[in-house]
Amino acid sequence: MSNALPSRSENFAEWYNQLVLKAELADYAPVRGCMVVRPYGWALWENIKAALDKRFKETGHVNAAFPLLIPMSFFEKEKEHVEGFSPELAVVTHGGGEDLAEPLAVRPTSETIIGYMYAKWIKSWRDLPVLINQWGNVVRWELRTKLFLRTLEFYWQEGHTAHATAEEAEEETRRMLDVYTDFAINEAAVPVVPGVKTESEKFAGAVRSYTIEAMMGDTKALQAGTSHFLGQNFAKAFNIQYLDKNNELQHVWTTSWGLSTRFIGAIIMTHGDDKGLVLPPRLAPIQVVIVPIYKSDAQRAEVLEAADRLRRALASRFRVKLDDRDNLTPGYKFNDWELRGVPVRVEIGPRDLAKGTVALARRDKPGREGKTFVPQEGLAETIAQLLDDIHNSLYERALAFRKAHTHEPKDFDEFKEVVQNGWAYAPWCGDPECEANIKAETKATTRCIPLEGESAEGQKCIYCGKPAKHKLYFARAY
Amino acid sequence: MSNALPSRSENFAEWYNQLVLKAELADYAPVRGCMVVRPYGWALWENIKAALDKRFKETGHVNAAFPLLIPMSFFEKEKEHVEGFSPELAVVTHGGGEDLAEPLAVRPTSETIIGYMYAKWIKSWRDLPVLINQWGNVVRWELRTKLFLRTLEFYWQEGHTAHATAEEAEEETRRMLDVYTDFAINEAAVPVVPGVKTESEKFAGAVRSYTIEAMMGDTKALQAGTSHFLGQNFAKAFNIQYLDKNNELQHVWTTSWGLSTRFIGAIIMTHGDDKGLVLPPRLAPIQVVIVPIYKSDAQRAEVLEAADRLRRALASRFRVKLDDRDNLTPGYKFNDWELRGVPVRVEIGPRDLAKGTVALARRDKPGREGKTFVPQEGLAETIAQLLDDIHNSLYERALAFRKAHTHEPKDFDEFKEVVQNGWAYAPWCGDPECEANIKAETKATTRCIPLEGESAEGQKCIYCGKPAKHKLYFARAY
Repeated sequence: MSNALPSRSENFAEWYNQLVLKAELADYAPVRGCMVVRPYGWALWENIKAALDKRFKETGHVNAAFPLLIPMSFFEKEKEHVEGFSPELAVVTHGGGEDLAEPLAVRPTSETIIGYMYAKWIKSWRDLPVLINQWGNVVRWELRTKLFLRTLEFYWQEGHTAHATAEEAEEETRRMLDVYTDFAINEAAVPVVPGVKTESEKFAGAVRSYTIEAMMGDTKALQAGTSHFLGQNFAKAFNIQYLDKNNELQHVWTTSWGLSTRFIGAIIMTHGDDKGLVLPPRLAPIQVVIVPIYKSDAQRAEVLEAADRLRRALASRFRVKLDDRDNLTPGYKFNDWELRGVPVRVEIGPRDLAKGTVALARRDKPGREGKTFVPQEGLAETIAQLLDDIHNSLYERALAFRKAHTHEPKDFDEFKEVVQNGWAYAPWCGDPECEANIKAETKATTRCIPLEGESAEGQKCIYCGKPAKHKLYFARAY
Repeated sequence: MSNALPSRSENFAEWYNQLVLKAELADYAPVRGCMVVRPYGWALWENIKAALDKRFKETGHVNAAFPLLIPMSFFEKEKEHVEGFSPELAVVTHGGGEDLAEPLAVRPTSETIIGYMYAKWIKSWRDLPVLINQWGNVVRWELRTKLFLRTLEFYWQEGHTAHATAEEAEEETRRMLDVYTDFAINEAAVPVVPGVKTESEKFAGAVRSYTIEAMMGDTKALQAGTSHFLGQNFAKAFNIQYLDKNNELQHVWTTSWGLSTRFIGAIIMTHGDDKGLVLPPRLAPIQVVIVPIYKSDAQRAEVLEAADRLRRALASRFRVKLDDRDNLTPGYKFNDWELRGVPVRVEIGPRDLAKGTVALARRDKPGREGKTFVPQEGLAETIAQLLDDIHNSLYERALAFRKAHTHEPKDFDEFKEVVQNGWAYAPWCGDPECEANIKAETKATTRCIPLEGESAEGQKCIYCGKPAKHKLYFARAY
């Protein structure tokens, strides 16, 4: 495998696949459709986890761990849920050398087993709300897979909450959608549209599904996180009841919400360029890389000493790495760290030592445009500001890209054209048949009815011409 | 289920089972032998993880994630490994509604799949050492299970490293044993004996297994963490080779090491008492609980305000909780937090408000002995010292207990007697047959040859009387 990537504009899919491998984020596992998340990719996921976990705890949630193996019969208890997930199950039929009396599913999601436990734990209104999150792995038997975006096994968090009233559960569903939105924008610099899924696109078993939708660099949409109001569907299926203040038995109202390693795919496809990854500064495993530049052995000792002094000075504030590999040229190292998307590169050579300066190169603007020469004094503060600036600039660039590729087609002919290279924001009658026809004819699916969208009143369905119910986004999607 | 626990001295096993349930550390899952780790138990595990992860990173390790599902054929590649693990495998035979061409094992441990990936990644001496750890879940089809100690699914970390030389790999194996020892003593206040396993007790596929062994409150031993020198067994089975500095192909040398949620069992059984858990201060999910004491509503407002002021003042330094539940008496709360093992309780009532004091109760010394009245001024510092004192005192108590229950029997008759309620430190000829006979006659197994043990020179095997090779610990074990 050569070091050069395919061009992003010419072959986005291949650019993505090779980038994931070459930047050592992930690799293919020996089992079809499974991935190995390599240390660099896992460090990125650990930062995503920390940023989300902090927000979950601030909003009153606690973590727990529910079993991987779920009795098959559990899936039968909620009709839509079983229809949605049965085709995707991996099933354990043997254990300890013997056939199992009841086969066990490897969890594809945990509403059923958590519902079973909540029925055991929840007795009274005093036990509510229950606000539990779980970090873990799940398995869905997907046919077409792609690293991070769709793999048989993936990593995620799934929140599962139970409430006394529908209002509280709905509020929780929206709160967690807000948490995802805030995380996407302020940690990952990924602009997202929060909205509601249509009936045909919602989670199997939900009353209502919310989503954050992001536009990737090839203009396709990616569902980057979801939050579901489950009503009393699982409460009734698993008999989760509580005694209210009047001592009457009531079913609880539940929610679930999740964000997965697929978000790493969103980061790669939102910010990356022909040179490789461009990681958002607040999540990047390495925020600052220091590359020492020297020609002679005498220079080497001096420069490395100064570079290591810088590293130590920056280490309390940033995730910093000194690249002191002595068998590679500075040019090779520049390319290597650009491929890996490190936001800021610090170059230090003999002349910098004399002048008390360093060169700073920002990853989001490769070449001369992004290069500055700054004093070593106050470097930490300079870099802190630069990282903020990079964050904002990544976000603005992605937002401008989404706006430039979002259209409001006047008729279905124009619709068909714009969804080939962008999103369509268009009115729709609400009929699932129109939705299915649009998908069949254009490959574009409904992404979401945006929370802060326009009214569809007085408008006509882009497909059938009947009065429109919603104005929503359509796009080809991952 | 009543709130009272069975007596620890009368029925240790039942005391343990009920304590785990009542303190809400874990619960039984609907699948036989599986557990749910509840939020309080998971918070304890998160603190264990953080304490270990910090040490792993300080010793140069990085985290990654390898797949849950492993082709069955992988196990066949290492002869001892397959013999050890085949009987315990859970096997996925169906996926996506179809029979799989090759069944997949749910990982019981990951040497095989990681070996496969390392063979792909490692090319040259420059790639070595590879120092990767994984946090995750594994499944072993155990017949007799017990919450935390032995469950079908459990949570752990497994480190897998590859090195250029046997010496480096052996050094790594020992380094990680030291990390576990340091963690057990300085975070969990659990005294451990680091040592080497005998041939018959070593990990399936290892050349040499190291262990830390801890004595539980019923004098049984518990293997609390293990570190294995795997030699070139897996390197040869999976063809993990590198080009050395002379451009010659060499097999790497590998290690693996793990510590699991079973350590939570060790903490419970080392420190717990008849009132419940006694959690070591550095790992306790709640280090300080504040219980407000009031009789009238007027008192209530005043006391709660002061209690919340204390909480805020302590929160930057400790994991602190204010128990402001208004439907429970202080006495009920005292019992509740004692059951849950919170190291320090702060009581504050109207008289304390007037005097500027609080009462401090330490969990490790319930009743009057552990109660002091201290000024609110300087409370954080007082508590910091108290937590350290509790840590040391838990450790010393457990160490004294182990010493009091460790014997050096003069003959096999005495041996048989002492292992009924303690450990025997005795000479052994090294013959696996003697080891097996001792186990059959006494239920005591070899625990470890301690690293800092005595020479067996000139002594005779406690069982057969032939010249002894090692002096080692024997005990009944979990």
